[in-house]
Amino acid sequence: MDYNKASLDMHEKHRGKIEVISKVDVKTRDDLSTAYTPGVAEPCLAIAGNNEEAYRYTAKGNLVAVVTDGTAVLGLGDIGPQAAMPVMEGKAILFKNFGNVDAFPICLDTKDPDEIVETVVRLAPTFGGINLEDISAPRCFEIEAKLKEKLNIPVFHDDQHGTAIVVLAAIIGGLRIKNTTPADNRVVISGCGSAGIAIAKLMLAYGFNNVTICDSRGIVTKENANNPVKKEIAGLTNPDGLSGSLADALVGADIFIGVSAPNIVDEQMIRSMNDDPMIFALSNPTPEVMPDVAKAAGARIIGTGRSDFPNQINNVLVFPGIFRGALDARAPQITEGMKMAAAKGLASLIADDELKPEYIIPDAFDPRAMRAVADAVMAEVQKESV
Amino acid sequence: MDYNKASLDMHEKHRGKIEVISKVDVKTRDDLSTAYTPGVAEPCLAIAGNNEEAYRYTAKGNLVAVVTDGTAVLGLGDIGPQAAMPVMEGKAILFKNFGNVDAFPICLDTKDPDEIVETVVRLAPTFGGINLEDISAPRCFEIEAKLKEKLNIPVFHDDQHGTAIVVLAAIIGGLRIKNTTPADNRVVISGCGSAGIAIAKLMLAYGFNNVTICDSRGIVTKENANNPVKKEIAGLTNPDGLSGSLADALVGADIFIGVSAPNIVDEQMIRSMNDDPMIFALSNPTPEVMPDVAKAAGARIIGTGRSDFPNQINNVLVFPGIFRGALDARAPQITEGMKMAAAKGLASLIADDELKPEYIIPDAFDPRAMRAVADAVMAEVQKESV
Repeated sequence: MDYNKASLDMHEKHRGKIEVISKVDVKTRDDLSTAYTPGVAEPCLAIAGNNEEAYRYTAKGNLVAVVTDGTAVLGLGDIGPQAAMPVMEGKAILFKNFGNVDAFPICLDTKDPDEIVETVVRLAPTFGGINLEDISAPRCFEIEAKLKEKLNIPVFHDDQHGTAIVVLAAIIGGLRIKNTTPADNRVVISGCGSAGIAIAKLMLAYGFNNVTICDSRGIVTKENANNPVKKEIAGLTNPDGLSGSLADALVGADIFIGVSAPNIVDEQMIRSMNDDPMIFALSNPTPEVMPDVAKAAGARIIGTGRSDFPNQINNVLVFPGIFRGALDARAPQITEGMKMAAAKGLASLIADDELKPEYIIPDAFDPRAMRAVADAVMAEVQKESV
Repeated sequence: MDYNKASLDMHEKHRGKIEVISKVDVKTRDDLSTAYTPGVAEPCLAIAGNNEEAYRYTAKGNLVAVVTDGTAVLGLGDIGPQAAMPVMEGKAILFKNFGNVDAFPICLDTKDPDEIVETVVRLAPTFGGINLEDISAPRCFEIEAKLKEKLNIPVFHDDQHGTAIVVLAAIIGGLRIKNTTPADNRVVISGCGSAGIAIAKLMLAYGFNNVTICDSRGIVTKENANNPVKKEIAGLTNPDGLSGSLADALVGADIFIGVSAPNIVDEQMIRSMNDDPMIFALSNPTPEVMPDVAKAAGARIIGTGRSDFPNQINNVLVFPGIFRGALDARAPQITEGMKMAAAKGLASLIADDELKPEYIIPDAFDPRAMRAVADAVMAEVQKESV
C-alpha cells in the first residue's frame, strides 16, 4: 500500500485529523443556561474558591497538550512547528483512540528552550498533563527538566521515556527467554540523543550495570562528550572504559539497541557479539540492521520499529497508558518508578507459555496494553504516595 | 429551573464540556500507517515546503483558540485563568454547535499584556483564528491591537465586537420600525469598557454622529478620561460637549445602550428621553432597567441580555458566523467592514412584515443566523480583496 499517497488524501479529505466536540447538548434555552450563562458561573466560583476543583468541573483532568517546536519531527528533522502539525494531530488521535485521553496539539513558534518553558507554564491551567514531542536533543532535556520543576502536572517527553519504557518491556521478555539477569548482560546503545540517553538511564535503573553508549563518532566517553548531557551519561556508562567505534563496543556484547541511523550494523558486527544476542534495531523505516541479516548472524531475538516484522517496538503501547494512569491517579509528575512499573506491567502481559523470540512484546493493537500500563502506573503512584 | 445546581451537576458528571476526537479511524495497521508513521511524513513535507498547505492538510483552518487570562469573567471579574475554564469550554462548544468551528480553551497564567501577546503569537501555528475572551479593559484593547499587527490570522475580541455587532443589528431593526436614520438619533451608552467602546465605534462607523458615552462617574470627556482608550473615544463622541451624569446625558436622547451595571436607570430617566426611545439594557442577569419599567415610561423597543424577555442581545448570533465566514474566506483579519456586514446580514433575516418592537433581532437559536453572518462576512472579504 502506498501510505504516502493515502496519507495525503486522508489529510486533505478530512482537513486534518482532530475535532473538538461538545460532551453536552446545547439545543435548548435550558441547555444554554446550564452549559453557559448564567449557570456556568457556579463551577467558575467553585474553582475560584479552590483551583483543584477544576479537576471536578472542567476537562482539565483529561486534557494533555502535545507540545512541539518542530525541531526533530519523525526522521525529517527541523521542519518547523507548522509542518509538525500532522504528527501532533496524529499523536492526539492515538491518545484518544488508545487511552481515551483528550490531547491537543500545541505547535510552538519558538525554538528557545526558556521561551518554550515559559509558554507551556502559562498554558498549564488548561491542561492536566504535558506530552513533549519531537523536540531536538539536547534542548529537550533542559526543557523537560525545567517544566517538571515548575509544574505540578505530569510532564513526559515521549521520544525519550515512551521509547525507553517499551524497549525495557521488550528486553524483560528477552531476559525471560534467555533466563538471565540484567547484571549478566552487557548492553550497547547506538544513538546518544533523546531516546538513547533515556534508554540508558532506564536500563541502569532496572539493574543493568554495563551499558555503553555510542554516537555517530563512536563510544561516548567523558573525554569526547560534546555536550553536558552526553558528559553526564558518559559518567554513568562504559564501566570498562572502552573507546573506539560502535564495532569495537559490540565485541562481546549481549544486547544491541539502535536508535540512530539505517544500516550501520553488519553481519560481522553481530557475529562479534556474545552468543544469542538481543538486537533492537529501531531506526525507522530502515533499521540499523535488517532482521534477516541479524538472523543470518545468529540472532534469535530481534525487534524493530516496523509493523511488518515481529516484535515491533511501538510507543503507542506506552504513552496512552502512562497518561491514563497518571491522570486518573492525579500524579503530580511521572517518576522513574512509574516508568519502571509501566515497563513491567506491559511485559507481564505475555505469559510464560506464549513467550518466544518472535513475541517478546505485545502487539501495538493489543487491547490489554493501555490498561496494564495504566494500572501499573496507578499502583506505583499509590505506593510512592504512602 | 435552578441553573446553578444543574450546571454544577452537568459539569461534574461530564468532567467539563469539551472532548478532542479523531476524524479518522485508527483501528488497523493500515490506518496507523496512514494517519501516523510512515505516511504522515508526506503532509509534513508538503507543509514544510509551503506553510500555507497547513490549511489543506491539518485542522488549523477550522481551529480557533478561545484565549483568556481570567481577568473579566462573566460578571464575576478577575477570578483567574483556572476558574475561567468552564466559560471558555462553554464558548468552545457554542463555536462547535452554532458554527461547526473547532474551538479550544487557552487559559493563560499571566496578566501581562505583552506576555499574553507573545504567548498567543507562539501558539499561532496550531490555530486558524484567535478569539479573545473575558480579558479586562483597557488591557484587552492593547492585546487585540498588538495581536492583529503580529498575526496574519483573524483575531476577534468577542466581548467587544461580538456585542457591538449584535447591538447594531438590533438597532438596525429598531431604525426600520421607526423609519428613521442613524444621523437622526442621539445615542447614549452607559459603560466605557470593552463592550461600550466597541459599540460606540461601530455605531459611529454605521453613520450615527451623536454618541455620548458614560462610565460610572458620568459622561466621559477628554478632560475626565482616566485612560488612553477613554481619551480616544471621548475625542470621537459627545459632539455637544455635554458633561454631567448619565441622567444628564439621557435628556433628549433617542437610544440608550447599557453595558454597565444593574438598576442604574429609572423610569424618570427614560421619560426624559425623546419619544419612542430604544432601550438596550444589557447588564446581566439584572439589566440597567427592567423591561416593565422601561415600558411604563413609554418605551416600545426594548432589548436585554436575557432569554426570558423579547429581543435578547446574544453574541451567539454573531461569533460563530464571524469565524465561520472568516475561516472559510481565509481572511487574514476581521475588518470594520466585516463587522458592519455581519450586523447587516443578521438584521436582514427579519422581513419587513415580521418586524415589530418585540422582534427586532433574530432568536438566539435562529438556525439561519450563522449562515447569514458567515455569508455576509465572506462577501465582504471578497469585496475588500478586490
